[in-house]
Amino acid sequence: MATDNRPFRFQVLAVERRIPESDRVLTRRLSALRGYFFDQVAYEALLAAGDVVVYEVHELRRPEESGELLSGLSIVYPGLVGEEYFMTMGHFHKARQTAEIYLCLSGRGALVMENEQGDSLVEELTPGRGVYVAPGWAHRSVNLDLSQPLVTFFVYPGHAGHDYATIGEAGFRKLVLRRGGSTVIVDNPRRIECPTGVRT
Amino acid sequence: MATDNRPFRFQVLAVERRIPESDRVLTRRLSALRGYFFDQVAYEALLAAGDVVVYEVHELRRPEESGELLSGLSIVYPGLVGEEYFMTMGHFHKARQTAEIYLCLSGRGALVMENEQGDSLVEELTPGRGVYVAPGWAHRSVNLDLSQPLVTFFVYPGHAGHDYATIGEAGFRKLVLRRGGSTVIVDNPRRIECPTGVRT
Repeated sequence: MATDNRPFRFQVLAVERRIPESDRVLTRRLSALRGYFFDQVAYEALLAAGDVVVYEVHELRRPEESGELLSGLSIVYPGLVGEEYFMTMGHFHKARQTAEIYLCLSGRGALVMENEQGDSLVEELTPGRGVYVAPGWAHRSVNLDLSQPLVTFFVYPGHAGHDYATIGEAGFRKLVLRRGGSTVIVDNPRRIECPTGVRT
Repeated sequence: MATDNRPFRFQVLAVERRIPESDRVLTRRLSALRGYFFDQVAYEALLAAGDVVVYEVHELRRPEESGELLSGLSIVYPGLVGEEYFMTMGHFHKARQTAEIYLCLSGRGALVMENEQGDSLVEELTPGRGVYVAPGWAHRSVNLDLSQPLVTFFVYPGHAGHDYATIGEAGFRKLVLRRGGSTVIVDNPRRIECPTGVRT
């Protein structure tokens, strides 16, 4: 992170899909995602074959304060755990009333979203398409292309914070799976909700 | 602007360089920029030939509140007023402690910036390059390519607001000019500052 308050430039559309000036890279390997994928038998088998990188986040670090913007590249690598595409953990913002913008730079994927009022939404990501994640919506990136990474540029308010616990290992209400060569969206059996919307 | 709080998608890299879902387009014609260009004789001569569009801002409207993000496309058309490239008015944010991110999608330009402590900075914009406009820095986009528009995607915090008056018609400390087929950055003769940094 720059120690002063001068503007700075960065590169996000380079062939190598990196932010050279980024000063933090978060690497999530398969071992860090235990419990997140639905098919736990397939997960253990894949992990036994090697602890591959599922996704990376290249952050442009700035103070985590209102008025600042946190941004960077999210790179989700291609792959499947059983029928489930490689994906990020997903999270709410700790400060619920904060939005996020995703802009797809390359690859093809989906942004899976849900709010605490019981709504779910899945938007496809293709190069040049953006998604405005309205305040109060948890979000997860899923790579739907088995031959190339899904690369998105993201921006969110500096004071947003992360809340991974509310979604937790039970996962989002919707799962994005590959079945018979197609992508299908199904209800997550681990998220059985009673009619009032309270998770059981 | 969407009336509910659902996430929505938009397209920014389409061939036509538009946000189809944008619900506000700000069009700045030459007549709206009287006084902003240094060479006022050239300005009046050009205006007499036609009130061309200098730039457009295609906004994705959202509530102007902390936690929200305001974003869209800025399109600065190619052209010169005397030696000075077509450019935006430029502004500070009303809430000074708010940043902005610019991501160049196509064309070639410059982001001219300055703060109230007397510093100036000019960053070149090329496709894929971003600039983090740190809090407290006024900013203006300049199109350095006389054959194509400069297209940038911008994001800033919802509560930022705009302050055009502080920079005003006197303009930024630095002018970006075309001289002898090259681009040069020169001091703005209309911005003579005394040693304490107070504008005279």
